[in-house]
Amino acid sequence: MRRTLSALCKNEPGVLAQMAQECGKYDANILSLAAGETENPEVSRIVLRIDGDDAAIDKVERYLDSLDEIIQIDDLSRKDFVDRELVMVKVAMDREQTGQLMQIFEVFRANVVGMGQKTITVELSGDQERVDGLIQMLIPYGIKSMCRSGMIVLKRGDE
Amino acid sequence: MRRTLSALCKNEPGVLAQMAQECGKYDANILSLAAGETENPEVSRIVLRIDGDDAAIDKVERYLDSLDEIIQIDDLSRKDFVDRELVMVKVAMDREQTGQLMQIFEVFRANVVGMGQKTITVELSGDQERVDGLIQMLIPYGIKSMCRSGMIVLKRGDE
Repeated sequence: MRRTLSALCKNEPGVLAQMAQECGKYDANILSLAAGETENPEVSRIVLRIDGDDAAIDKVERYLDSLDEIIQIDDLSRKDFVDRELVMVKVAMDREQTGQLMQIFEVFRANVVGMGQKTITVELSGDQERVDGLIQMLIPYGIKSMCRSGMIVLKRGDE
Repeated sequence: MRRTLSALCKNEPGVLAQMAQECGKYDANILSLAAGETENPEVSRIVLRIDGDDAAIDKVERYLDSLDEIIQIDDLSRKDFVDRELVMVKVAMDREQTGQLMQIFEVFRANVVGMGQKTITVELSGDQERVDGLIQMLIPYGIKSMCRSGMIVLKRGDE
């Protein structure tokens, strides 16, 4: 089962390594991980997408919750949250296909961020379906290079 | 010094943990980390922003390059690349300030993704300066919650 954990952590060395190790120990596969700053310079937020046995992920979550460096951990598969992911894709382009590609970018509201002689690079931020949708549309043209940020999340509402 | 490493890795357990541990060993502080899928389902791209001694980061880079799981590593402080980061910010809002906030969102081309009774949530993707710029503008209003993806990168041009 795929689940998403969001952890607020103190900026101390070793937290990321412990997290990754613990997932390995229980055979939970890390699909994506995004670690970035928060509104507090001493605190980071790490969003982890994991695939694995439900009981195993529960164990990972309990272990992380027990660490002093972890301030709060939320299991987002059980809560209401807004998710977003950022992707950059470099796709092959020849003259005949430019129009088709531009139409795809318009439909998905993807922004062109670079252009070469034989490729065009776009960025898109959206939920998982939208990001996956764009990628599926571009595969037939030939994806030359791609970078995804991993999912980031915030709770809905005022909380 | 702040540097950015981009690594193409085989999807094998333990790579992320090794990376994080190695940074800790040389006292190199991980500022952000984004690990996500690529065009190849067996390969992930990990983008690492590190702050530390130049010689220390060189050692981390050489060590990572020596691992079997790592297919390619690029030191992006030395190359031409497009960088982007995604941020979601939940900011306090009262009725009088709505207009001002909306103007800021328009200037930065940030998208509203959620609204509560007392807060509004926006997303923005852009380079570091743009993301930092939006955050600086929103701090006086009161940032309630924030999540950053960490930097993602692709080389410029066709390569």
